[in-house]
Amino acid sequence: MNSDYVRVFDTTLRDGEQSPGATMTSAEKLDVARAIARLGVDVIETGFPAASPDDWRAVNTIARQVGDAPVAGRPNPTPAIICGLARAHERDLERAWTAVEPAAHPRIHTFIATSPIHREHKLRMSKAEIVEHIRKMVGFARSRCEDIEFSCEDAGRTELDYLAECVAAAIEAGATTVNIPDTVGYTTPEEFGARIAYLKANVPRIDDVIISVHCHNDLGLATANTLAGLRAGARQAEVTINGIGERAGNTALEEVVMALHTRAPSYGLRTGVDTTQISRVSRIVSSVTGMNVQPNKAVVGANAFAHEAGIHQDGMLKHHATYEIMRPETVGAGASQLVLGKHSGRHAFQVRLEELGYPCDRDELDRAFARFKALADKKKHLTDADLEAVITSEIYQAEPLYTLDGMQVACGSMGLPTATVRLKCPDGATRVEAAVGTGPVDALFKAIDGVVRTKCVLLEYLVHGVTQGIDALGEVTVRIKGDAPTRRVHAHGAARRPVFHGHGADTDIIVASAKAYIAALNRLLQSQERVQPGAAEAGKEHTA
Amino acid sequence: MNSDYVRVFDTTLRDGEQSPGATMTSAEKLDVARAIARLGVDVIETGFPAASPDDWRAVNTIARQVGDAPVAGRPNPTPAIICGLARAHERDLERAWTAVEPAAHPRIHTFIATSPIHREHKLRMSKAEIVEHIRKMVGFARSRCEDIEFSCEDAGRTELDYLAECVAAAIEAGATTVNIPDTVGYTTPEEFGARIAYLKANVPRIDDVIISVHCHNDLGLATANTLAGLRAGARQAEVTINGIGERAGNTALEEVVMALHTRAPSYGLRTGVDTTQISRVSRIVSSVTGMNVQPNKAVVGANAFAHEAGIHQDGMLKHHATYEIMRPETVGAGASQLVLGKHSGRHAFQVRLEELGYPCDRDELDRAFARFKALADKKKHLTDADLEAVITSEIYQAEPLYTLDGMQVACGSMGLPTATVRLKCPDGATRVEAAVGTGPVDALFKAIDGVVRTKCVLLEYLVHGVTQGIDALGEVTVRIKGDAPTRRVHAHGAARRPVFHGHGADTDIIVASAKAYIAALNRLLQSQERVQPGAAEAGKEHTA
Repeated sequence: MNSDYVRVFDTTLRDGEQSPGATMTSAEKLDVARAIARLGVDVIETGFPAASPDDWRAVNTIARQVGDAPVAGRPNPTPAIICGLARAHERDLERAWTAVEPAAHPRIHTFIATSPIHREHKLRMSKAEIVEHIRKMVGFARSRCEDIEFSCEDAGRTELDYLAECVAAAIEAGATTVNIPDTVGYTTPEEFGARIAYLKANVPRIDDVIISVHCHNDLGLATANTLAGLRAGARQAEVTINGIGERAGNTALEEVVMALHTRAPSYGLRTGVDTTQISRVSRIVSSVTGMNVQPNKAVVGANAFAHEAGIHQDGMLKHHATYEIMRPETVGAGASQLVLGKHSGRHAFQVRLEELGYPCDRDELDRAFARFKALADKKKHLTDADLEAVITSEIYQAEPLYTLDGMQVACGSMGLPTATVRLKCPDGATRVEAAVGTGPVDALFKAIDGVVRTKCVLLEYLVHGVTQGIDALGEVTVRIKGDAPTRRVHAHGAARRPVFHGHGADTDIIVASAKAYIAALNRLLQSQERVQPGAAEAGKEHTA
Repeated sequence: MNSDYVRVFDTTLRDGEQSPGATMTSAEKLDVARAIARLGVDVIETGFPAASPDDWRAVNTIARQVGDAPVAGRPNPTPAIICGLARAHERDLERAWTAVEPAAHPRIHTFIATSPIHREHKLRMSKAEIVEHIRKMVGFARSRCEDIEFSCEDAGRTELDYLAECVAAAIEAGATTVNIPDTVGYTTPEEFGARIAYLKANVPRIDDVIISVHCHNDLGLATANTLAGLRAGARQAEVTINGIGERAGNTALEEVVMALHTRAPSYGLRTGVDTTQISRVSRIVSSVTGMNVQPNKAVVGANAFAHEAGIHQDGMLKHHATYEIMRPETVGAGASQLVLGKHSGRHAFQVRLEELGYPCDRDELDRAFARFKALADKKKHLTDADLEAVITSEIYQAEPLYTLDGMQVACGSMGLPTATVRLKCPDGATRVEAAVGTGPVDALFKAIDGVVRTKCVLLEYLVHGVTQGIDALGEVTVRIKGDAPTRRVHAHGAARRPVFHGHGADTDIIVASAKAYIAALNRLLQSQERVQPGAAEAGKEHTA
């Protein structure tokens, strides 16, 4: 690879998934990993295998199924590097290694905090102890895996000379990539660029490794800091789709890639990303995680190219470059076309799904096609967005414990909103409940609660009419919080609060609401099952 | 004012309002202007008075009612400068002047494009012609108003030496602020900072005026570019709340203000903004414009401080600064408290609204209190967010032509979704219609269409459960597009496509949907009335 090549390290599945409520199932993670691999990224950080047996399995499945051979549609000739995160402990490193080992190009990513505030309050370790620990643990990781990335957590607030010492120790011990995260989104572009330049100038053998940058967006500066780091010599950018991630999120992949692309003569750097897939992958991630994208989001927001739709029309009519620095086609944001209708066959449907980047197996295709036909009966013209909604609703879902068998609702300004639901239960029985609520959704959820009988709090309820036209297919996202904590361990050591989302699509938003709520409840119930002692034992065999 | 003071110029009402569908009524603009004035900004760009008689009236009303005296709760002792935008034509300048004249501190902001692509394709003017035009028009504006801001449109892509020539001409002709916009969001922070430094070094008398920066976020760099401009010597930042604006939007006020605040020792600059009001104003603007804020938005997103809610808990328990660079209280994002219930009186309600920053007149209070009581009957505990939803739904609405008198809906997976509505019409009559649809909202909108009988296309339909809990008050935003273009002129010369939004809140989301759709239709119908010849004539009197 030439010195102008920037490795794109996508951490949507790890740091992105740490957004509250963005938890994905293993099946969803596999789908997202495939989409990200197709996009052409160099490294996919797939999770934190020591967090739970389920996390280990998700990473391992991706290593086997996405990391073993080039994914269809991927611009790069080699499979992406599959990376697993591990705290700097032998057990975590071992778990990460067994998870990623089946990939053609496995990587272990390990880290320890280096800033004064983390040393003093969190780790209670001295500077020298931390350097020694880095040597030992990076060395241990390298004894398992050829490709080791080491991060100085909170590098943005670490003393420059001590940061250089830590990075040097990691390189000596065998790290092949050293990552400089601005963990709390604190630095300015000038400061962050200067940090990378300092390391370039002061760390022995720094030119033998790749410097990586990982920025957070708390002050809205993540993209600028990432670009400043690249200008100063970093050659890997850690990013997420739509900029999702902890708090205000991570650096957005689409912004860094399009800045390097649009301003190529200024930066003189390039990536391996196929920009025309950006819009599609953005939409998949937004659907699967339930993290919506605001209309004024750079590159992937609904209005990002909206001068086409009435703004600055005069200039645009005379010359598009008057108000446009990139074409919508470049990021795959072309107008959605009418593609299929009531009389379209199964094959045409499958072909179109593959063109859209959703390869299905036979069973998935059966389910999606049945939903497509039911929808085509109600809606005359089906757009790509409709098809995507069908797919994300039917396929990217947890395996159900409870399924909706039928429902009816009566409401309005003059009566008492009343809902009746019939659910198929895990024991095979069908149960019916009715309830009155403050509105149709409240009544509906109460009726479902009457059947499911688990405790949860509704955190968010969001409806999108995804497609134009008054007969639009409605998408609903529900986010709930369970009562009991799960035992999944967070990368930074704390137990994770159980927030779950569910997603449903239907021309009737009340029906879509029921599907979404049941999907969220299923996810909650499955996670409670997962932390049963039996499940934890089942996971342990992989550490051997 | 000291040299470390950065003037905050808020253009939410002008550039922000240019977002597709974010059109506001005059009453809404007045409410937003009040909220922005309370926040402590220095300059409020209130609109483009020559666009239509209605725009003129909105600016003029704000000049009279917000620009005449300090607004209650405003940290600064003087009223904000009230600014109106004008193309560099005598008629536009005259209209802008008559609109802002009643303010204690009026400003006219005028502009012309200076970049090669705009000169050649849009203006078809030579460099010399443009300089001559700047001299003449800035001079004319200055003959009316003491405070003149001049912008070189697309300054980010203008030749440096020619940019300096244009800025020098504007200063000679009497401009008091010169604005350097990166109109298309093209520059990098290094380039943008270098532009400001070049002007500082090369333009005669540049130190006698304020340099202003105005950035767009197409590559995600607006905040970094703005800060780079300030570091290089600019002392006015043009921003919008939530970063709304054309395409990917403008620089977000909250990001620039919080970067300068959080990194004060690094920047050595300060603003007059009361940061604790940021969350509230963000919410008002999001409600009024229907432009939702994504959860991972810096500073004002729902997850911006979400380490508090389960992420990085271990570190946070040991010391909040491990993962937090600003406290949620600093931006007024404290936890929503239970405040009022069924037995709360009218006075307590009014006091709480004032504390929340929503002063109401008697009539508004009557309407809001009636809604509050109806809601308190359904929902036990009312949070601040509930109250804000009531206020934004009842008060920040267009004056109605049609109002909802009653409705009922039946739907579900087993039947034909059917809606019945009863509307009060502008002629005083009450009409009832029923319709069947693909879902309850489709049926409902068809029934409403049966009464209202105007043509429109549904562009977006969005539901938020704004408050926690399953009996949440639902907020619905609807965006529609009419068939005929309105005659309102865009600042850059093109006719504007009519996109209108409506907003409704109710515990029943189907009822909220009806309210939102009717509100959007009312807006559409009013705009069609506004462009009748009579209305245009009525506007003309103000130009004299």
